[in-house]
Amino acid sequence: MKTVTIVAFDKFTDIDVFLPWDLFNRVRLLEAAWQVKLVGTKAKHTSVCGIELAMHDTIELCNEADIVFFASGPGTRAVIKDPDFLNRFRLNPARQLIGSMCSGSLILAALGLLEGLTATTYPTATAEMKRFGIQIEEKPMVVHGNLATAAGCLAAIDLVSWMIERTLGKEASEEVIASIQPVGKGLECIY
Amino acid sequence: MKTVTIVAFDKFTDIDVFLPWDLFNRVRLLEAAWQVKLVGTKAKHTSVCGIELAMHDTIELCNEADIVFFASGPGTRAVIKDPDFLNRFRLNPARQLIGSMCSGSLILAALGLLEGLTATTYPTATAEMKRFGIQIEEKPMVVHGNLATAAGCLAAIDLVSWMIERTLGKEASEEVIASIQPVGKGLECIY
Repeated sequence: MKTVTIVAFDKFTDIDVFLPWDLFNRVRLLEAAWQVKLVGTKAKHTSVCGIELAMHDTIELCNEADIVFFASGPGTRAVIKDPDFLNRFRLNPARQLIGSMCSGSLILAALGLLEGLTATTYPTATAEMKRFGIQIEEKPMVVHGNLATAAGCLAAIDLVSWMIERTLGKEASEEVIASIQPVGKGLECIY
Repeated sequence: MKTVTIVAFDKFTDIDVFLPWDLFNRVRLLEAAWQVKLVGTKAKHTSVCGIELAMHDTIELCNEADIVFFASGPGTRAVIKDPDFLNRFRLNPARQLIGSMCSGSLILAALGLLEGLTATTYPTATAEMKRFGIQIEEKPMVVHGNLATAAGCLAAIDLVSWMIERTLGKEASEEVIASIQPVGKGLECIY
């Protein structure tokens, strides 16, 4: 069984949780041994736009997950200052794929995962990333081994695609992404 | 005040509710007199991937909304056979913008809104659309006056963009869509 965890928190950017959530769940149509879990520090977290979202598990599940996906949003600024949040993670890029959307890169930085590496982030988080000593590349996605940062909500497609390809291969990744393309622009049904 | 209603139901396709939800809410950063409401027939509806989503109001709110956006999903097959669902709508494309994603076009068809018109839909719903006597165009979006059908999840960007442009103008629409582009591919911050 492969486990994907999507890390949420209060004031998460809606689409940066729900787009990967939908895409990762499409993998289950191709691969039964695949589970997607929303994880946080509370039973429910509330998005920037006010959606109250139930979590499946706590953030400790990330420590044994195959794929760890950090969402973004104004709420990242609170969690990166919270030792009780940060100290619960025992991530290891040697055995896990780890990625972040937009300002979710701040969490990777606060966890010390980006030391000596470059990253991308949403422009509103660039100054804070630089305070962590991290050089920013203005690209949709920056990959270093098993670590990837992506920025600009639609870059989640690149990040999820990379994570699926690295786990299940190029064909699975292409099928999932094709299933959301507009009609007449490469859409392929997997339903 | 402009009101957008997003119509959900049990077994809605996650991204076809949450992508427009996020995009329409971004308009509130530009225009205070703008509200986005999730509407359904129950207090909560559950998505295909298992998210339990609280509704803000009932589907009757669509009858006085400026923009009515029908989501998609396997659940459309139940609601189009349910007179108690269909009979609650009093939509009027003369005074409202009305649109659907993917198989949401089946609801427009069942409401009689597409009579004599062409439409687009997700390929799995094409045969059912034809049984309503509707000719399918294999395009991301098909517009007739104030009515639009879009298909293939990412075509929601075209549909939402068209709805914002028709309501608030091209500049507002372009700003919202630019705010979700990947870094380095046209992203403009509106936060």
